[in-house]
Amino acid sequence: MACPVRRHRRPLGIGSFGPLEARGGAGKYGRIAATSKPGWSNTGVADRLGGRLGVPVGFATDVEGAALAEGRWGAARGLDDFAYVTVGTGVGVGLIVAGARAGGFGHPELGYIRVVRKAGDEWPGACPFHGGCLEGLVTGPAIAARTGVPADRLPADHPVWETVAFALGQLAHVLVLATAPRRILIGGGVIAERRYLFERVREELRASLAGYRHAAELDDLNRYVVPPGLGTMAGPLGALALAADAAAAHERSR
Amino acid sequence: MACPVRRHRRPLGIGSFGPLEARGGAGKYGRIAATSKPGWSNTGVADRLGGRLGVPVGFATDVEGAALAEGRWGAARGLDDFAYVTVGTGVGVGLIVAGARAGGFGHPELGYIRVVRKAGDEWPGACPFHGGCLEGLVTGPAIAARTGVPADRLPADHPVWETVAFALGQLAHVLVLATAPRRILIGGGVIAERRYLFERVREELRASLAGYRHAAELDDLNRYVVPPGLGTMAGPLGALALAADAAAAHERSR
Repeated sequence: MACPVRRHRRPLGIGSFGPLEARGGAGKYGRIAATSKPGWSNTGVADRLGGRLGVPVGFATDVEGAALAEGRWGAARGLDDFAYVTVGTGVGVGLIVAGARAGGFGHPELGYIRVVRKAGDEWPGACPFHGGCLEGLVTGPAIAARTGVPADRLPADHPVWETVAFALGQLAHVLVLATAPRRILIGGGVIAERRYLFERVREELRASLAGYRHAAELDDLNRYVVPPGLGTMAGPLGALALAADAAAAHERSR
Repeated sequence: MACPVRRHRRPLGIGSFGPLEARGGAGKYGRIAATSKPGWSNTGVADRLGGRLGVPVGFATDVEGAALAEGRWGAARGLDDFAYVTVGTGVGVGLIVAGARAGGFGHPELGYIRVVRKAGDEWPGACPFHGGCLEGLVTGPAIAARTGVPADRLPADHPVWETVAFALGQLAHVLVLATAPRRILIGGGVIAERRYLFERVREELRASLAGYRHAAELDDLNRYVVPPGLGTMAGPLGALALAADAAAAHERSR
């Protein structure tokens, strides 16, 4: 593909782990927010790298960058409204609304929604903040904590996958009702090698909506809840997308 | 205030009950979607009124119109990202993202999110689709069904208000994590006369977030979860806002 970044401006795109201060305001833009990662809390990343290089900087979460890349070159190409979800050691959600990353005072953090539980499921969950929020139920570490076995060693018929699909169906339900994305992409280590989970998530979404919401998009969930298209290239291409956007914004502001 | 609608174009703004087909596509734009209201399903409203008048038409839900009005003249003035919630016979949510109404294939329907319940609360809920979704718990009819008493006759110390505040705290939690609105306005008949509910909703939001998310906006919830500013004028001013937007879009497209 043609390089999307205009060479003469050589902008920098950074798709970082979160949480970030990436929505402007009071000198905090471009920083890592409070995090349990040693040494990273409140570290200025965008200024430090971009300032030294003297170039425009695009700074967002890695999942937001990947979402932009999926919208340009991947499984959400041509869509202005979609969601990109990763399920791995955490849950990340990139929410694209009207073609841009959504988020007022910060980026989406939908991994921490509290979800209703499958009937009879009372495991307390692994999230240190919320117990059984989405992250406390569906991430690799949560699954390992629950079963005592690393997620990648669990067979497809292990009952934990029913609870994972149920919780991801709840996330999809929330997304459908919040910004009505035209497609929901789900990737990440927990789900990437388990294509059978997609059908279960679609079934849980269908059951949860319970016939309430009508839209052409929801008539065929096989095309609505889908894997991403860029695989391991979503991250690097995400940084390129952020760089391209930073260059374009810089051009507009001149 | 100066009339926001340019006189020479005389556009039409319609803030309608939902659900609507108001996001374009396949000749359905401007219609009422499937509804239990007799005679209204699939009725074309925007074309019928706008076509006869030969003017630009802005068509959205009443709550989306009211949200736009609150953003221009009310309690969300100057904010590009906020949410406007009404709690009455139903729950309506207008979600403004980057200054515009959010929604890919349709408008937000966050009244139908499934919410976790206050410990020990097992009332099945009143929603015909989902039982104990938000609408099934917090609307006037739901409260009356639950208590056997019309909501407006219930005293402030009735325990049902704890469940209402808890559920609205869950909605606020979802909003904070989804699009990070810079303010959440809550109005509508159920809450308008009960200012004491605001403090309870703020407490439930604080407890539910459990210290996870940090933002200046969340440091003072008294200024974050607030009543709307326009009172009964939000509806009419919402239609004016929609008309003004339709005129502006028409100008841009010429």
